Amino acid sequence: MALNETLLALLREILGERLSVGQADRDHHAQSESFHRAPPPDAVVWPESAEQVAEVLRACSDAGVPVVPWGTGTSLEGHALASRGGVTVDMSRMDRVLEIRAEDMLAVVQPGVTREALNTELRATGLFFPVDPGANASLGGMASTRASGTTAVRYGTMRDNVLGLQVVLADGRIIRTGTRAAKSSAGYDLTGLFVGSEGTLGIITELTLRLHGQPEEVAAAVCAFDSLDHAVECVTATIASGIPMARIEFVDADTARAFNMHSGAALPEAPHLMIEFHGSTGAVREDAERFGEIARDFGARGFDWATTAEDRARLWRMRHGAYHATFVLRPGATGVVTDVCVPMSHLPAAVHAAAEDIAAEGMIGPIVGHVGDGNFHALLLVDPNDADEVAKAKRIAARMAERALAVGGTISGEHGIGIGKRGLMAAEHGEGWQVMGAIKAALDPGNILNPGKLVPDRN
Amino acid sequence: MALNETLLALLREILGERLSVGQADRDHHAQSESFHRAPPPDAVVWPESAEQVAEVLRACSDAGVPVVPWGTGTSLEGHALASRGGVTVDMSRMDRVLEIRAEDMLAVVQPGVTREALNTELRATGLFFPVDPGANASLGGMASTRASGTTAVRYGTMRDNVLGLQVVLADGRIIRTGTRAAKSSAGYDLTGLFVGSEGTLGIITELTLRLHGQPEEVAAAVCAFDSLDHAVECVTATIASGIPMARIEFVDADTARAFNMHSGAALPEAPHLMIEFHGSTGAVREDAERFGEIARDFGARGFDWATTAEDRARLWRMRHGAYHATFVLRPGATGVVTDVCVPMSHLPAAVHAAAEDIAAEGMIGPIVGHVGDGNFHALLLVDPNDADEVAKAKRIAARMAERALAVGGTISGEHGIGIGKRGLMAAEHGEGWQVMGAIKAALDPGNILNPGKLVPDRN
Repeated sequence: MALNETLLALLREILGERLSVGQADRDHHAQSESFHRAPPPDAVVWPESAEQVAEVLRACSDAGVPVVPWGTGTSLEGHALASRGGVTVDMSRMDRVLEIRAEDMLAVVQPGVTREALNTELRATGLFFPVDPGANASLGGMASTRASGTTAVRYGTMRDNVLGLQVVLADGRIIRTGTRAAKSSAGYDLTGLFVGSEGTLGIITELTLRLHGQPEEVAAAVCAFDSLDHAVECVTATIASGIPMARIEFVDADTARAFNMHSGAALPEAPHLMIEFHGSTGAVREDAERFGEIARDFGARGFDWATTAEDRARLWRMRHGAYHATFVLRPGATGVVTDVCVPMSHLPAAVHAAAEDIAAEGMIGPIVGHVGDGNFHALLLVDPNDADEVAKAKRIAARMAERALAVGGTISGEHGIGIGKRGLMAAEHGEGWQVMGAIKAALDPGNILNPGKLVPDRN
Repeated sequence: MALNETLLALLREILGERLSVGQADRDHHAQSESFHRAPPPDAVVWPESAEQVAEVLRACSDAGVPVVPWGTGTSLEGHALASRGGVTVDMSRMDRVLEIRAEDMLAVVQPGVTREALNTELRATGLFFPVDPGANASLGGMASTRASGTTAVRYGTMRDNVLGLQVVLADGRIIRTGTRAAKSSAGYDLTGLFVGSEGTLGIITELTLRLHGQPEEVAAAVCAFDSLDHAVECVTATIASGIPMARIEFVDADTARAFNMHSGAALPEAPHLMIEFHGSTGAVREDAERFGEIARDFGARGFDWATTAEDRARLWRMRHGAYHATFVLRPGATGVVTDVCVPMSHLPAAVHAAAEDIAAEGMIGPIVGHVGDGNFHALLLVDPNDADEVAKAKRIAARMAERALAVGGTISGEHGIGIGKRGLMAAEHGEGWQVMGAIKAALDPGNILNPGKLVPDRN
């Protein structure tokens, strides 16, 4: 059902000035960092409390109008697009760090706090929040997509770093999940259920996050390889050796070229690994030496150690900018981004097959990856107005997904499902996808929470 | 509904000789390691495949008869008791290790495999499965209760070490959850939902488990303290220092006395910590030295290092035997076991308050704990035939739970809910408990899967 005047008046009563039906606000919330497109929402609201979110949800439930939560709009699968119209709930005004308990290594934040804002507040405590998807995403959004990124190989994903949530359900009930204890066996893991549910089961209004101690020593480096295969085989050998990596990232020759063109880097146009070690001074030195030996066995060259914090910041800024940098390889293009994750032993073959497929199709599709988890992305650069080309990129992406599933992998390591990967869910989960639908139907019988995403359509 | 002749005939068709209505078999499956009691099930079945489990569930669904999964019967909250009658499904014949993929650091097992059996099979691979609740429980049972134990401080709980499951739902559908990849963002975390669901949402028929590399070096020790407070404060200081502990266990003076009487130990009758370090030779030496310095600040004495594998095995066998050993302090007694878990900074006060309450009530209640997680147990020794005493123990347990909840902790760190802690669920979860009930109703509309446990009763 579309937004009518009665609902609009009710929402205005709840939110006053923090409601807009202006074209600019609605268009802003129809943007997506990827090629996914949808019409703008009918209205945008900026609530300032869980109670207001609850009132919005009760009103929209009664009216049967879709509600789409919005963090920073940096997701890559169209999660936050109002593809069935309705009200976008922009959480950016709920951006307070509510509590930092250093002695319990946890922080309580509102969902609009970004990961960089949290880490800025944590600087003096000796602690940090490690999950780092690159974009300065909101923590509510990161929880909703079960985000991870470069540091998951050491610190885990949002699944591992969210201790508890406050969530508003479709009917306006406000619940709390999880506790502040390190572990619990008290019933179903509702925290784990809401993390990764992409706004389809409830709207997150508060998060309790696990913090980690800043390492005594950090060392980072970049090195080049003669071939993609050698670089990726070096990763599997490193992981198998048990060296505790804080980050181990792969970028291919195209990406290195893009860094040179876009970021003024001077890398050889070859596949690279970017690595980082965290620990005591002695341990970091030992780990770096052991990695160096393994890497040289695979022909690594041009080791460039980032010895200062500034050098490291520059290195990871470059890596995090890969998505935007690669557009320099084809100005005006947009990206179809793949996100498979495979068991470690299958990683070299999976990356190799993807590169061959992309080359055979004559497409520009640089490959980067959080390879310590077996997760990698191809950024297939397409002309958004060329339907054939977009279709070809989607076919390449589908073949990557098929190959990943054939070896026990997943269609999405970290970006989530949203609109973009929904067509692959049945292939990964079989009847389990229907179970997800049954859970959705139980918690959101009116199907108002981010409808058309993640779960199967209702019959 | 009770078991009738029609259903019995149907089950006999499915299972042949692997069905029993004999009193001895039924009584065996009415046993519990704790004070919880229930009448025996109407029948016991021993399926040998997921397909047989599915046939049993379809038959029992059609008849509306309860189904209770059984692992090794070592749970402490009456999870596997057929408190509403019906059929107990004993998984002990599904005890094969199906696959070990050392290069992907995972194993695929049937649910009846015990943790010790798996680790015996893994010995030659250089890998091990770390979760260690003490009892040689089945891995299906450990997943169902989200078990943890002494090593969770380093390796996590079953939540962190189950990558995927095969589950049979109430209606007989067989689903697979999770993948073999290190992480996934592909939809709701069904694996996490079934782990800890105590057989109320489905019956686990296969598990994919995360393995870990055997550490290069292991060092373990026990040391004594002058007071309970000093021992526990030493734990919080150690955890805060960031020293990576593989195990850090507390036992109080009563438990030390029980070890001396039951296991022939010669410990001072004082509070102790038992600790273990895993890592490279250099790192373990460094960690042990740093711990020694902290411990001596809290007055630790009588450091006894277990230098050989046999010494370490003896040490941890003694710790794991604590539950049984403490009965020597009151022969003929049974145990009411508490299981709270609190944020680290609240641990000293929580243990202190529990000890004071137990002493004030004049009860024998030794305290042990996986204190690196903030989790500890009082083993309240009661005469099972003295209703007043049992009630008193339950009141002490309830007060421990209340105090844990007041500081953001949980009523169960690792034992789960079962029958025993169901009365505390509303206090911990509020409206979230109803959400658990809604999920249960969606996946098991006939309420045949382990009814009367964990979730609220249906209206």
